[in-house]
Amino acid sequence: MSETGPGTTLGVGMVGHAFMGAAHSQAWRVAPRFFDLPLTPRMVVVAGRRAEATRAAAERLGWDGWETDWRKLLVRDDVQLVDVCTPGDTHAEIAIAALEAGKHVLCEKPLANTVAEAEQMAAAARRAAEHGVLAMVGFTYRRVPAVALARQLVAEGRIGAVRQVRAQYLQDWLADPSSPLSWRLDKQKAGSGALGDIGAHAVDLAQFITGERLTGVSALLETFVHERPVAAEGGSALHGVGGQGTGPVTVDDAAVFLARLDGGGIATFEATRMAWGRKNAIRLEINGTAGSIAFDFEDMNVLHLYEASDEGRTAGFRRIYVTEPDHPYVGAWWPAGHGLGYEHGFVHQAVDLVRALADGTQPEPSFDDGLQVQRVLDAVERSAAAGSTWTAIEDDASGTPDGDRSE
Amino acid sequence: MSETGPGTTLGVGMVGHAFMGAAHSQAWRVAPRFFDLPLTPRMVVVAGRRAEATRAAAERLGWDGWETDWRKLLVRDDVQLVDVCTPGDTHAEIAIAALEAGKHVLCEKPLANTVAEAEQMAAAARRAAEHGVLAMVGFTYRRVPAVALARQLVAEGRIGAVRQVRAQYLQDWLADPSSPLSWRLDKQKAGSGALGDIGAHAVDLAQFITGERLTGVSALLETFVHERPVAAEGGSALHGVGGQGTGPVTVDDAAVFLARLDGGGIATFEATRMAWGRKNAIRLEINGTAGSIAFDFEDMNVLHLYEASDEGRTAGFRRIYVTEPDHPYVGAWWPAGHGLGYEHGFVHQAVDLVRALADGTQPEPSFDDGLQVQRVLDAVERSAAAGSTWTAIEDDASGTPDGDRSE
Amino acid sequence: MSETGPGTTLGVGMVGHAFMGAAHSQAWRVAPRFFDLPLTPRMVVVAGRRAEATRAAAERLGWDGWETDWRKLLVRDDVQLVDVCTPGDTHAEIAIAALEAGKHVLCEKPLANTVAEAEQMAAAARRAAEHGVLAMVGFTYRRVPAVALARQLVAEGRIGAVRQVRAQYLQDWLADPSSPLSWRLDKQKAGSGALGDIGAHAVDLAQFITGERLTGVSALLETFVHERPVAAEGGSALHGVGGQGTGPVTVDDAAVFLARLDGGGIATFEATRMAWGRKNAIRLEINGTAGSIAFDFEDMNVLHLYEASDEGRTAGFRRIYVTEPDHPYVGAWWPAGHGLGYEHGFVHQAVDLVRALADGTQPEPSFDDGLQVQRVLDAVERSAAAGSTWTAIEDDASGTPDGDRSE
Amino acid sequence: MSETGPGTTLGVGMVGHAFMGAAHSQAWRVAPRFFDLPLTPRMVVVAGRRAEATRAAAERLGWDGWETDWRKLLVRDDVQLVDVCTPGDTHAEIAIAALEAGKHVLCEKPLANTVAEAEQMAAAARRAAEHGVLAMVGFTYRRVPAVALARQLVAEGRIGAVRQVRAQYLQDWLADPSSPLSWRLDKQKAGSGALGDIGAHAVDLAQFITGERLTGVSALLETFVHERPVAAEGGSALHGVGGQGTGPVTVDDAAVFLARLDGGGIATFEATRMAWGRKNAIRLEINGTAGSIAFDFEDMNVLHLYEASDEGRTAGFRRIYVTEPDHPYVGAWWPAGHGLGYEHGFVHQAVDLVRALADGTQPEPSFDDGLQVQRVLDAVERSAAAGSTWTAIEDDASGTPDGDRSE
Repeated sequence: MSETGPGTTLGVGMVGHAFMGAAHSQAWRVAPRFFDLPLTPRMVVVAGRRAEATRAAAERLGWDGWETDWRKLLVRDDVQLVDVCTPGDTHAEIAIAALEAGKHVLCEKPLANTVAEAEQMAAAARRAAEHGVLAMVGFTYRRVPAVALARQLVAEGRIGAVRQVRAQYLQDWLADPSSPLSWRLDKQKAGSGALGDIGAHAVDLAQFITGERLTGVSALLETFVHERPVAAEGGSALHGVGGQGTGPVTVDDAAVFLARLDGGGIATFEATRMAWGRKNAIRLEINGTAGSIAFDFEDMNVLHLYEASDEGRTAGFRRIYVTEPDHPYVGAWWPAGHGLGYEHGFVHQAVDLVRALADGTQPEPSFDDGLQVQRVLDAVERSAAAGSTWTAIEDDASGTPDGDRSE
Repeated sequence: MSETGPGTTLGVGMVGHAFMGAAHSQAWRVAPRFFDLPLTPRMVVVAGRRAEATRAAAERLGWDGWETDWRKLLVRDDVQLVDVCTPGDTHAEIAIAALEAGKHVLCEKPLANTVAEAEQMAAAARRAAEHGVLAMVGFTYRRVPAVALARQLVAEGRIGAVRQVRAQYLQDWLADPSSPLSWRLDKQKAGSGALGDIGAHAVDLAQFITGERLTGVSALLETFVHERPVAAEGGSALHGVGGQGTGPVTVDDAAVFLARLDGGGIATFEATRMAWGRKNAIRLEINGTAGSIAFDFEDMNVLHLYEASDEGRTAGFRRIYVTEPDHPYVGAWWPAGHGLGYEHGFVHQAVDLVRALADGTQPEPSFDDGLQVQRVLDAVERSAAAGSTWTAIEDDASGTPDGDRSE
Repeated sequence: MSETGPGTTLGVGMVGHAFMGAAHSQAWRVAPRFFDLPLTPRMVVVAGRRAEATRAAAERLGWDGWETDWRKLLVRDDVQLVDVCTPGDTHAEIAIAALEAGKHVLCEKPLANTVAEAEQMAAAARRAAEHGVLAMVGFTYRRVPAVALARQLVAEGRIGAVRQVRAQYLQDWLADPSSPLSWRLDKQKAGSGALGDIGAHAVDLAQFITGERLTGVSALLETFVHERPVAAEGGSALHGVGGQGTGPVTVDDAAVFLARLDGGGIATFEATRMAWGRKNAIRLEINGTAGSIAFDFEDMNVLHLYEASDEGRTAGFRRIYVTEPDHPYVGAWWPAGHGLGYEHGFVHQAVDLVRALADGTQPEPSFDDGLQVQRVLDAVERSAAAGSTWTAIEDDASGTPDGDRSE
Repeated sequence: MSETGPGTTLGVGMVGHAFMGAAHSQAWRVAPRFFDLPLTPRMVVVAGRRAEATRAAAERLGWDGWETDWRKLLVRDDVQLVDVCTPGDTHAEIAIAALEAGKHVLCEKPLANTVAEAEQMAAAARRAAEHGVLAMVGFTYRRVPAVALARQLVAEGRIGAVRQVRAQYLQDWLADPSSPLSWRLDKQKAGSGALGDIGAHAVDLAQFITGERLTGVSALLETFVHERPVAAEGGSALHGVGGQGTGPVTVDDAAVFLARLDGGGIATFEATRMAWGRKNAIRLEINGTAGSIAFDFEDMNVLHLYEASDEGRTAGFRRIYVTEPDHPYVGAWWPAGHGLGYEHGFVHQAVDLVRALADGTQPEPSFDDGLQVQRVLDAVERSAAAGSTWTAIEDDASGTPDGDRSE
């Protein structure tokens, strides 16, 4: 493919260099060392707003060059992929411009802060795809081996038809009212709070593992701490500290909702950053007609599987330590039993993306998938605003045909 | 108290002798052997519908006599307490008659099948209380030591003000579509399905531990298996087997709902008998402003506690093995470390009831408490029937004054 | 059998009424209420040294009568079984006298404080058996359903031939140096410390589950706290508190040993009452040629099973919640999912004993089994005294023929 | 320091490029991206025996050059550190030569296959240290954050004086008799089996965390599978597959031993590669006078801590999710709650080594530390060969003064 650049390299230009930028950098650096890739990623250039911080980030994270204007990346011949790691309010502008400039795009989740923006992005992605320019949204938790195994098992029918899902994403880093404000607490920049930041992951994972989509929700949003100390501008790359005075929290602290799946099942969802003691507890439990699976990211190398067909006397949830060579992604790493960590999901994402680009096939999850999650988040907000009334999730038939979802 | 009979005995007459009857019998038998009781329970008489089965039950369960008409119990001088262990559709008639006959009443949960019945029962209990005749509803899980400890800790402020509750009661005994019909699947007899059978426990426990009440809900009910094999009449004391043909399931298989608490917190609830691999998973997790607690009945002797005030480097959920002498109820049993089982909750219930009767104080939970749970269940059903619309839980001020809830 | 008394009752006379006496009383009381028994136990008489304490115990524990001289029990026609719940130094005298008086005997573990005493007891049991008078030693943990299931699975070959055993019995009630002296810390009365008190259980369970016997050991014993406060005489029924001054600890606080099994496997054992935070952690893990099992009494209703034959991608330890009707002993109790507690093992022991007595078959574990455990304990002490030198466990061929071990 | 090369780089030459070589490569690549290092590692050259395999490894693992003779590395000016990742039988020759050539050395564990070799290596390291040339042995599990935290807590006295240690390293990759031979099963190349391969880690960790050393052991070694299929030469980089016929296993499959610590505590150790279902279960449990800690590498981001000083009613093991910024090494990575994996220990090892080299201080663990572990392994083998007789561990006062162990 000519789009993927001269020879066998894939030039990457990354926008943003905070938490997600560091994770993506590690992925580009490490992926070709463990996986056979048809294209070798090259860390060409990173863009940020502030010159000194960006220069330092380029050096620390290992990028060959840096820019303070992301538009510079779009005109460089040595960049074939733009990797968008900025807050959600900038996703649409950058991603659409990059696609229109003929650059493949990897965009962090949530795809956008509004359905309208997400629709524009998905439309741009569909147009670009006609010219072999491809876009992917970064729901990296799909690439945790235990999660990928869960999807495999469900797809193979090991738990039968899905009846019930309970999905939780529990954190506690905002439980303390003295935790400072950051862009993640600003509706303008983040779109929503726990809902979009972590609830989006829970929605994507539930849909990914079951292979189904939510059709409607009934929701409740709550903000427990309405005012927080101001963090210094750029004080922290990640969650921010420092600053003076207090400012308003304009997003939800917690989101809970009920849902129906298009296969007939029902679900409960919860996203919160106020659950003392839960640090990154992405918990999924799925009950089917023939069994159940359960996962908790705080024990990320483990998947629990119950099969109703097991002999009754010895039936029980199996604790599968997902570190064997025949588990998804695992064979490329270490001998059996040597667990992976958080960042490996980003490496796997890079691997899957590079392979799709080389093949000219649509990488998953697509912007249409990202749009659909955005529609779920939007329905949640509308339901919560309307007394938890049942709210259908619009499904744009042209945008998300069944064919997009098959693998 | 003259009501409690001659000397220091408390004559008990029990109605019903299936699962709950067996559990209550064990409680009356064992309680005085481990606890110092002001009145000694005497297992006077058991009533059932069928003579032979009732006679056999009396012998097996250790009752001095038996009757096929529960009304006979109400006229016996040697019965001071009527213990109602029948399906929910008979609770109102029996309990009200017993109270009016001057007998104390212990009534299994849910208090009734409808709010109307529950209101009549609560009214009868209030009238009886004026004459020192007392009524209690049997939410025995409150008496699991780990649950009682949870309430203590919350009441002491160890986790601060409650922000979020997630409560689940997961079973799987109906996940197999060939599991037969029983009275628990018949709306006439059971009132509702998972909602009233096990969801009622989840609601009571959440309210008990937090010391708060639900103010509104948004709900979804689902029946996954609409037709099941017929179980033989009286085929099984517990869940029933045998019989011919199939019949309709007229209750929910699963109930999920969101709720608000009167202290400002939010909650998610789930009750299901379709969750393969979960046998009796009553799970409660409560996040407060200062910490969290978590419980799972499948590991019933354990309570997990997180305190935000712990030194950061060593903070973590503490696995409290609730088997120490200073844990609620535990000191009466074995040396530290020797866990209790399901039935001990019934023993503790008997102990608490006997002590309240001897003191002439209102045993907890009262019929008013049972009525309030019934109102929650009713609101859940109404919300589910109205597209998950937010549905307030009526609070009858005269019936459930704050004073009733303090301890 | 004429020995089992008039009609269908089994008159029981119990000696001792502390911790074990309370547990045995509960077993005799409860067993006939849940299990169909060929003989109905009757709680005839309890014997103790001090009149007032024994009278109170009889009333509290529910015995019809009481005596201050255990010999009185041996001459009563209404006593067919003597249940020995006293410290180990009195077992031999009481049990042998009872057997010679034609009374069946249930004797708490360890069988005796010395091999010599145990040999006399086993010999007496063999003589009595010739006249249909039977003896059993009380290793009740065998009757925990998860343990009984473990034995079933091993016997069925589910984990293949046993290669390795790791057995631990960890408690912490002596970890605090201010925990007082009790008879359990006095070599004269208790024989040994952690070794005989709890290590004996670990040895019995390892042998019971594997169906094999230890052939030799290499051991280390340690006493960490040599002096403790004196507990008041009779101050506590269980672990004792009160008293003045300090006294010497004359037994081990912890015992660790390596062992070989007669099937070719190897094992590690540990017994300690000094492991802070472990309350009653009887842990057994057994690795065979085809799988593994693991158990921890602190989660007593669970057994973990790994089968090497499972599909590689989904192999894992199964958490079997041993509360289903087809699990050993469980069907007699509650519906699936309602766990049992510590005391249920005693009920099951009573059930198994009563059935064996009614059948006239040797109850398991026999006094010969108890003797063999005593020989293991003795070998441990001798090895520890001799620089951990490998020490063979004598196997008295006449006393413990293979036939005794089959079921 | 002039030894650390021109400017601020540290030129690394690695010998061996299989499992350990891949792990070390990842460490050199990643360390400077997350940690501020005084010297920047440069991946200069890798050496291997076979040209094509080595060339391919250099490319895949990211080394600038490659050699088939490791001696070439010793004469290169751009190599300041030789990283030895070969089987144990070559460690002494390579490491000693490198040290004598003035190169710093990082040598994989176990330090050598015999005490004699280890002594020579330690002596060489001591001589080299006089000239500022430093050596370190690679017990990477010390650098798992939860393990490093454990050591911190013990050193701070949080669990008091150590009384008991139970250390297990359980794997199952040899449980299947059809698993092929590899150099790890050949006594010539590997020195010993489970004992040296994984038992060495258990010994090092127990000593590292407690800050104490073993003074003697009583041991048992066992080989369960004496003959295995031959693996093809070079068939697999890691555990090897392919080949024809069978060959003898000349090392132990499992090693168990008792030990005493120099602080007065006792310990049990077990290393096995035959424990079906246990993939990489490095388990450490340490009981002190004031508390306990527990760790299992299969849940590597978690440390369990029990403190006896906790309020009795809420005491319990704390599950510390070791992913907070104030946990050892963690702050350099991701926001709280995002766990690390196996390979991160190697990164931390590289970081600690680079910092020590820049400071000119002795990196830990030293070759003397490695020698001491070798002496433990040797004592285990001698004890096992002598009927488990207690065998003291020689302590060469000149080689391992107390001063070496303090931090």
